Amino acid sequence: MSKGEATRQAVLGQAVEVASRLGLSGLTIGTLASQVDLSKSGLFAHFKSKEQLQLQVLAYARESFTDQVVRPALQARRGEPRLRELFERWLATSRDSAPGCLFVSAATEFDDQPGPVRDQLVRDHKDLQDAIVQMFRAGIGEGDLAADADPEQFAHDLYGVMLGFFHGYRLIGDHEAERRTRRAFENLLRNAKS
Amino acid sequence: MSKGEATRQAVLGQAVEVASRLGLSGLTIGTLASQVDLSKSGLFAHFKSKEQLQLQVLAYARESFTDQVVRPALQARRGEPRLRELFERWLATSRDSAPGCLFVSAATEFDDQPGPVRDQLVRDHKDLQDAIVQMFRAGIGEGDLAADADPEQFAHDLYGVMLGFFHGYRLIGDHEAERRTRRAFENLLRNAKS
Repeated sequence: MSKGEATRQAVLGQAVEVASRLGLSGLTIGTLASQVDLSKSGLFAHFKSKEQLQLQVLAYARESFTDQVVRPALQARRGEPRLRELFERWLATSRDSAPGCLFVSAATEFDDQPGPVRDQLVRDHKDLQDAIVQMFRAGIGEGDLAADADPEQFAHDLYGVMLGFFHGYRLIGDHEAERRTRRAFENLLRNAKS
Repeated sequence: MSKGEATRQAVLGQAVEVASRLGLSGLTIGTLASQVDLSKSGLFAHFKSKEQLQLQVLAYARESFTDQVVRPALQARRGEPRLRELFERWLATSRDSAPGCLFVSAATEFDDQPGPVRDQLVRDHKDLQDAIVQMFRAGIGEGDLAADADPEQFAHDLYGVMLGFFHGYRLIGDHEAERRTRRAFENLLRNAKS
């Protein structure tokens, strides 16, 4: 990794934190310069424009999410154990780290702002839904889940469960949020078995 | 209603629309003045500060949500019919109108910004959860739901279902979002009966 690339990666890591606090729309080259040890002109040299910065921050957050959630799940046995690993990792990321937070807030910020950032968010979301659908199908194949269970419904429902966790834990400060979220996940799995 | 109060109500109605697009943090006396037929000094006379404006917009949105969702549900028979009416009205509001949208986006904007706006959002959310818990308890009392079903779990899960709808419908433009959300609601009710 070149020195320039190492700098870029370090700045993106900080930019994800800034964006998870201020919102992705609040992340500009100006607001970022005030938070990191680089001049606006130095940041422009790396990121060219606000939109490029936002897209690169999303790419960085997506890579972190994949490393923290999706890849570890793929190490678990196919079927129910893999879905459980996915859920536990996702819950931990939503609780403890900035990238999960960024995707949730960016979705409500950009849902009515057409353009490349919204398009990328939609692609990222569909990729994750597809990954969940594949893991669920494998669970049917392994005999862990009912043959007529609906993988797309499960993927949709699981996303709602995670948004509910996020909302209860981050906004309300509900101490029961994690326990209730685990119970909601168990109910989803039970429905998928019968 | 005095002329001043009528003006204030009309401006608040427009401010909810602006806030549902720009985010509640993007709603300032300056951005609102550029959207309505009043000067900044006229808006200052009505709202005093950005924070007062944001709090009054939340109060207006809360009142709209109560009118559109909670009060009609309370007209339905206690128990399952009331929960179904609540769900249908909530779904319609999330699909078609700005106030529902405002609460979802404001929650992710303000979850890490301590202060009066966040405090109000938390109170509003808890009030809604309490209303759902009461409706669910009445459902147990009527014999529509199992005696050992958990009202707080249902209220938590229903919120996740609505957030999942919102996400699928608004961000992803998923044509299946409404159908999947109805199915998720039916699964919640079925779990609450057994």
